[in-house]
Amino acid sequence: MTESTATTVAVSLDEGLSGATRVVFIVGDPIAQVRSPKGVTAALREAGRDALVVPAHVAPDDLAAFFAGVAPMRNVDGVIITVPHKFSAAAYCKSFSEEAAFLGAVNTLRRTPDGAWHGGMFDGTGFVAALVDAGCHLQGKRALLVGAGGAGSAIGHALVNAGVASLDVLDNDTSRTDSLVTRLAALQRGAVHTAPKEVAAESFDVVVNASPMGMRADDPLPVDVSRLPASTFVGDVVTKPPLTPFIEAARARGCKTVTGTQMFARVCDRMVEFLLDAQA
Amino acid sequence: MTESTATTVAVSLDEGLSGATRVVFIVGDPIAQVRSPKGVTAALREAGRDALVVPAHVAPDDLAAFFAGVAPMRNVDGVIITVPHKFSAAAYCKSFSEEAAFLGAVNTLRRTPDGAWHGGMFDGTGFVAALVDAGCHLQGKRALLVGAGGAGSAIGHALVNAGVASLDVLDNDTSRTDSLVTRLAALQRGAVHTAPKEVAAESFDVVVNASPMGMRADDPLPVDVSRLPASTFVGDVVTKPPLTPFIEAARARGCKTVTGTQMFARVCDRMVEFLLDAQA
Repeated sequence: MTESTATTVAVSLDEGLSGATRVVFIVGDPIAQVRSPKGVTAALREAGRDALVVPAHVAPDDLAAFFAGVAPMRNVDGVIITVPHKFSAAAYCKSFSEEAAFLGAVNTLRRTPDGAWHGGMFDGTGFVAALVDAGCHLQGKRALLVGAGGAGSAIGHALVNAGVASLDVLDNDTSRTDSLVTRLAALQRGAVHTAPKEVAAESFDVVVNASPMGMRADDPLPVDVSRLPASTFVGDVVTKPPLTPFIEAARARGCKTVTGTQMFARVCDRMVEFLLDAQA
Repeated sequence: MTESTATTVAVSLDEGLSGATRVVFIVGDPIAQVRSPKGVTAALREAGRDALVVPAHVAPDDLAAFFAGVAPMRNVDGVIITVPHKFSAAAYCKSFSEEAAFLGAVNTLRRTPDGAWHGGMFDGTGFVAALVDAGCHLQGKRALLVGAGGAGSAIGHALVNAGVASLDVLDNDTSRTDSLVTRLAALQRGAVHTAPKEVAAESFDVVVNASPMGMRADDPLPVDVSRLPASTFVGDVVTKPPLTPFIEAARARGCKTVTGTQMFARVCDRMVEFLLDAQA
């Protein structure tokens, strides 16, 4: 899964680049595939900021040197974090949003007045925002989450915070599933369970794939959708392909859907809000 | 004196910014006043490179951390160096152009295949290129240079390399003047002398101000121009104001002139050539 945004921009470099331009890095390894530089830059400019999102290709072993070098760059206001740095970058933050603190992972850092980094994480709230866009009211709903990794943890946390009545988590890795379930249950905001392997997807109002399944053409569907009623909301974090077999099968059943692309557009919105707060 | 370039660009950020965009930093303290991000970016794009010049505001004490952080950024191909880092940045280079080696100063760094930095310095050759643009053939000419600091040293070196018959250097600081004269004379490319305080500017074919004189409204002229013949070429490194009293007085005498702005446009050209070589 990669980032994406629906926003486009027609700011010329002639207007939009000078010595006074503020910088937000996006750091990853690899970096060439990310699409947020354009979309986030556009959104910052629409908000009146002379700012630019600049790609930084940094390997895991070099992340400490990168942060040591960025810290004293006085015109750098933020760092967007992408794969594989979302967990390791948390070590360079002095404070965290609630979601980032819970997950121990960050996808956006903004500069605090004392020059330190405040870390935020919007993979979960971005996904929930995309579900709301699709007409899904999460309060009291029964949710099934496939995948207990980084994206799954973020989405599970956001679903529980959004008021679902119950969350069931399905993942082959029993220990990380149990860990996530225990930690989410401890928030005491809804019932959280480990789902059985042969879970009946049709007994949920919301079904989300937060696993990589669907990226390869021969992947099985994350769960059996053959009995889903049209009232089920179905989401997927995978962006390549833009329409996964899972989303296509759900649409064939009449379900409303949220694609990975739609999710990441909302994640970018949250990043921008968070970065703009930095200078408020 | 600050940087400038006459080049303009109409590349939109929509085309010109992605995760695959290559980065060239421009580092200085302050940085907001520099104009080369736009011009150098435009020139790199005209040469077919998906590249962006990104400002980095770094204080002198933080330069080591900056270079340690930039070194592992794999999509960074170069660093443009501006005030006050032109001398200190040389410490981070593994190799140098001839001009940079002579001056112990750099204004552009490009990445070598082994990931190290190769340093170049174009303040002198840029100035000479602007003189040539103005119709000045330097071979065999008598040149007077006012100012033996960073810019003066670079221009003195370039004038001697361009084949002037003689170079006289005028500066209130006797020791740095003598040092520059000795080092330029050692190149054995032309006669190099310390000019007397009351030098007769009219006995030279080329008169260059490489001192800050002219930046403030109440500065005296660098040398008396009241007897200059119209055949004299007169240059000035000062860019603010764009037309110094020195240049205006020379033009009133009918002399051909090179302004700081014209000089820095040619400096930018040399930077771009040097950066493009990096990937050849």
